[in-house]
Amino acid sequence: MADLLDKINDPKDLKRLSEKDLPKLAEEIRHEIIETVNQTGGHLASSLGAVDLTIALHRVFNAPKDKIIWDVGHQAYAHKILTGRREAFHSQRQYKGISGFPNRDESVYDSFVAGHASTSISAAVGMAVARDMNKDDYNVIAVIGDGSITGGMAYEALNNVLSSDTKIIVILNDNGMSISPTTGVFSKLLGKVRFDYHYYKGAEQGKKIFNSNKPGRAIWGWMRKVKRSVKSYVLPTTLWENLGLAYLGPVNGHNIKELESAFKKARDYDKKSVLIHVITTKGKGYKPAEDDPSKYHGVSPAGSKPRTAPTYSQVFADTMKDIMEKDDKVVVITPAMPDGNCLTELQKEFPKRIMDVGICEQHAVTFAAGLATEGIRPVVAIYSTFLQRSFDQIIHDVALQNLPITFAVDRGGIVGDDGKTHQGIFDLSYLPLIPNLNVAAPRDENMLRQLLYTSVYKSNHPMAIRYPRGSAIGAEIIKDFIPIEIGKAEVLRTGKDITIVPIGFCVNEALEAAKMLAEKGYEATVIDPVFASPIDIDKISASVSNTKHLLTVEENVLASGFGANVIEKLKNMDIEFKSHSLGIPDEFVEHGPQSILRHNYGIDRDGIFAAAFELISK
Amino acid sequence: MADLLDKINDPKDLKRLSEKDLPKLAEEIRHEIIETVNQTGGHLASSLGAVDLTIALHRVFNAPKDKIIWDVGHQAYAHKILTGRREAFHSQRQYKGISGFPNRDESVYDSFVAGHASTSISAAVGMAVARDMNKDDYNVIAVIGDGSITGGMAYEALNNVLSSDTKIIVILNDNGMSISPTTGVFSKLLGKVRFDYHYYKGAEQGKKIFNSNKPGRAIWGWMRKVKRSVKSYVLPTTLWENLGLAYLGPVNGHNIKELESAFKKARDYDKKSVLIHVITTKGKGYKPAEDDPSKYHGVSPAGSKPRTAPTYSQVFADTMKDIMEKDDKVVVITPAMPDGNCLTELQKEFPKRIMDVGICEQHAVTFAAGLATEGIRPVVAIYSTFLQRSFDQIIHDVALQNLPITFAVDRGGIVGDDGKTHQGIFDLSYLPLIPNLNVAAPRDENMLRQLLYTSVYKSNHPMAIRYPRGSAIGAEIIKDFIPIEIGKAEVLRTGKDITIVPIGFCVNEALEAAKMLAEKGYEATVIDPVFASPIDIDKISASVSNTKHLLTVEENVLASGFGANVIEKLKNMDIEFKSHSLGIPDEFVEHGPQSILRHNYGIDRDGIFAAAFELISK
Repeated sequence: MADLLDKINDPKDLKRLSEKDLPKLAEEIRHEIIETVNQTGGHLASSLGAVDLTIALHRVFNAPKDKIIWDVGHQAYAHKILTGRREAFHSQRQYKGISGFPNRDESVYDSFVAGHASTSISAAVGMAVARDMNKDDYNVIAVIGDGSITGGMAYEALNNVLSSDTKIIVILNDNGMSISPTTGVFSKLLGKVRFDYHYYKGAEQGKKIFNSNKPGRAIWGWMRKVKRSVKSYVLPTTLWENLGLAYLGPVNGHNIKELESAFKKARDYDKKSVLIHVITTKGKGYKPAEDDPSKYHGVSPAGSKPRTAPTYSQVFADTMKDIMEKDDKVVVITPAMPDGNCLTELQKEFPKRIMDVGICEQHAVTFAAGLATEGIRPVVAIYSTFLQRSFDQIIHDVALQNLPITFAVDRGGIVGDDGKTHQGIFDLSYLPLIPNLNVAAPRDENMLRQLLYTSVYKSNHPMAIRYPRGSAIGAEIIKDFIPIEIGKAEVLRTGKDITIVPIGFCVNEALEAAKMLAEKGYEATVIDPVFASPIDIDKISASVSNTKHLLTVEENVLASGFGANVIEKLKNMDIEFKSHSLGIPDEFVEHGPQSILRHNYGIDRDGIFAAAFELISK
Repeated sequence: MADLLDKINDPKDLKRLSEKDLPKLAEEIRHEIIETVNQTGGHLASSLGAVDLTIALHRVFNAPKDKIIWDVGHQAYAHKILTGRREAFHSQRQYKGISGFPNRDESVYDSFVAGHASTSISAAVGMAVARDMNKDDYNVIAVIGDGSITGGMAYEALNNVLSSDTKIIVILNDNGMSISPTTGVFSKLLGKVRFDYHYYKGAEQGKKIFNSNKPGRAIWGWMRKVKRSVKSYVLPTTLWENLGLAYLGPVNGHNIKELESAFKKARDYDKKSVLIHVITTKGKGYKPAEDDPSKYHGVSPAGSKPRTAPTYSQVFADTMKDIMEKDDKVVVITPAMPDGNCLTELQKEFPKRIMDVGICEQHAVTFAAGLATEGIRPVVAIYSTFLQRSFDQIIHDVALQNLPITFAVDRGGIVGDDGKTHQGIFDLSYLPLIPNLNVAAPRDENMLRQLLYTSVYKSNHPMAIRYPRGSAIGAEIIKDFIPIEIGKAEVLRTGKDITIVPIGFCVNEALEAAKMLAEKGYEATVIDPVFASPIDIDKISASVSNTKHLLTVEENVLASGFGANVIEKLKNMDIEFKSHSLGIPDEFVEHGPQSILRHNYGIDRDGIFAAAFELISK
């Protein structure tokens, strides 16, 4: 089946293959990726698009001496397979298996961790400057998508390439998609090149250029030739050259020979940094993914249980639909995640009011601030882990001006298979410290709906609403909107022995734990604070004064977390109590199923029961 | 003296002035700014450079209906004087006086708060899209410097201008300086225009273009004419036009007539967004500031006390000098703040190893991460408030990979006159939540020196070292390097009645408070934790077990803060104690002298004494 791939243990073996075998090898790799990802889940379409490019890279360059940095990292499956991890690849994203993203701890071939977008060029400039200082002589290559390059820090890095007086190679893997189709004028420019390129390919003049492989030929001569033959792509050429990079392309990203030729030219050009513009097809080689690359960006593992409840993301989208149909001042801003936030359908209904700004979390938030100053009501939908990019903008542009904006913080808590780079385990620490910002975490899907409504219509402050990845708990969704009192906790159960204060996902686990405690003869009060800021300390303290025992539970780091804030407030009130706080210790959380990881950290029903039992009985 | 300015109460009065009086008015405003800032301190050079531009803006546009957004905001003094705040201007940056930055709460003419760089275009796009949705018809103008436009979020916003299908006007106030001379290839490009422009002005052809003021004339015709007459600036024109903006300029930023002509053209052009490239001289009209604009970027108030001790920033720079002279693998990265961080002298000694990356806090950190992977030892010097921009990069690119990088976090705590936008009051909350990152806060200048050494040579983790703005306390600086044990607290005084755990600046205040308590017959233990992460909880708990009273003190918000983390850990250890935590409550901190603000929040010696006394005696 995989005759060629069976012979490849590391990139050296790749170099021994004859050129004519490479398309078959690419096919074998694609087969391996499709088979595996259909079992394990993962990022299918991006990695399929980058197979040929990866083969060419590892044939032309000498990793690990040469440093290859994969932006975002979810394009790197072929890289993993070709760098000694073929056997391990079936374990990718599985508990205790290899990561779905590049990981320095996993392989010397992974030169930089990347799960967030737009970091690769900054890292590349750093490595290249270090190389020059160390008088070393390897190549540094950043592979970045057309979506990631819209992120501001990619521009910051490009702006520093020339002034750093060093050489890097940037490979722009341009498939016209970030995760959803890339937005922004920059993308339109690239689109122009893509169009011209396909026209040009149609005229079948392409091969001539790349066949002239004579060594020592000046890159500029080659480029002039390309420039003359491809109409009207002078614009992006100029753009890159303005930024101090030689521009090389466009190159057919599925023709390994063309790719190798371009990579060699970039490698051997010693004057300055080079950008190679590679045109790829997302999902290449797998018809369903080529036809709908957004859908096949991330794939669920085989045998996933059918959902018994909607996802929180879907409930968010459904609620926004109900609000937006009645109120044309409400808009939703998403930084390149309409699919993940379940907004694709709504985008059809409100093409102008579902605003995809590209992978631009900083701009997304301050853009929302501008809208809010003029009476438009923005809801900014960002995953918890990516909202870290907007931290300063939330403080300085939103909270300081106390502008009414809702942050729909999806994937709060443990996200599961994506692992360390994507866990949303910091937001209950980094959001409540911001003055003027209310921070809520619904315990079920109906509360998410009502909190969204409350935030948009019943609040004078910005509000962040943080909810988990995946299926909700199956609570009844009340169609009518019922405002939730801001900063008020809800006592869900009363008992004399202990006060349990869980937040978000942990609330229902705590209710289950309370039942288990009851079986042991202990009665627990369970208070859902609903808000991590402001905290309803009066209600909590009234209960703790009686029960003398407090257990806080959060799907978040303990450091600077919800529990710490509750306990600090109670201590200032001079109440005597014993307490324990459950949450995530001072470490990054590995990948694996949410249920296993939550269990390991003791924040599910079993862990809550055990901690409460120990606290009461000691 | 100020005959013309005396007649101006708001922009309407400005419009009544005859054109020929405007240069004199500009002179009067400059005089007012120089006189005032010499008394009050403030941002002199930027505001002087923007006087003529401000007059022209308020004559051509109709604020507050038209929205003018000042990026960074420290260019806005003339704007404040011309919009009804001339009388109040003498109180700027003074306690209870007006802000040194635009402030929506202060005036309807201030359409957006700005103290951090690169936010204006995002806000402008938001306001313009809101205007279109509301079917309103005002202008939205972002005034941004050539330094600020290097920030990634400015690029994110520009990339969204065209796709937003709205019209904004961007005024690029290009003085070739951010705070220090602007770096990066982008700046080189602009420099090319500046050079051409001065050549062109020398040929005295400028006036002809702007005299042809015939209404209805197409902007493109005008631009073509300019293009033809100014050689070789096709590059930046193309750059902007690539981004979907019509490019207009360069315009002499000190010729009000030229400026008004350009602004009118941009206002009346209804096809798309316009970028007006205005060339100004930083410090214009004040010889000392023109000659040394970096020095006159920020000016200290008259009658400032001579320093009895060096500033922490100077101690940082002196220490880096000692380290870098012996170790050529150590580099310092600064995002456009070599002056503020006292690195200007060191930059002369190590032009390649003091790396100014421009206003790019995100890139600065990930660039450092790239360097660190290859054995270079980076020290990233950023003010606490600006480090908020790097939050995600610290988590995802540095801490997750556990790369050895030092963050020299200057201006931690209350910074004083700059006020709400610049207070460094969140870092003891948002840094300790990051796994793998050590967070330290020296109590004096010698400890800053030794912590820097420790971080660079004795640590396997990234470390943030947070120190205050302004003068250190006059402690002896030990020239020899003495490593500090990471995560170990120091007991500075022992007493049986209370354990005081202050951090950073607050340590010496607490020692003074302990003396005051002793006079009242109470003996305090004072423990300097040195580290906010990891916290030496064993040493603290041993003391609290004895004293039964704990007072934590931090120059930081209480929410998710140092005190909360200490108390949460103690409670998990099942120790009985009464406690109180001092810090900043849930609000943004106004401007004013550090001493007054610290006193108001009770984190100086008097406040610590009072809180400790109350806690013990109740």
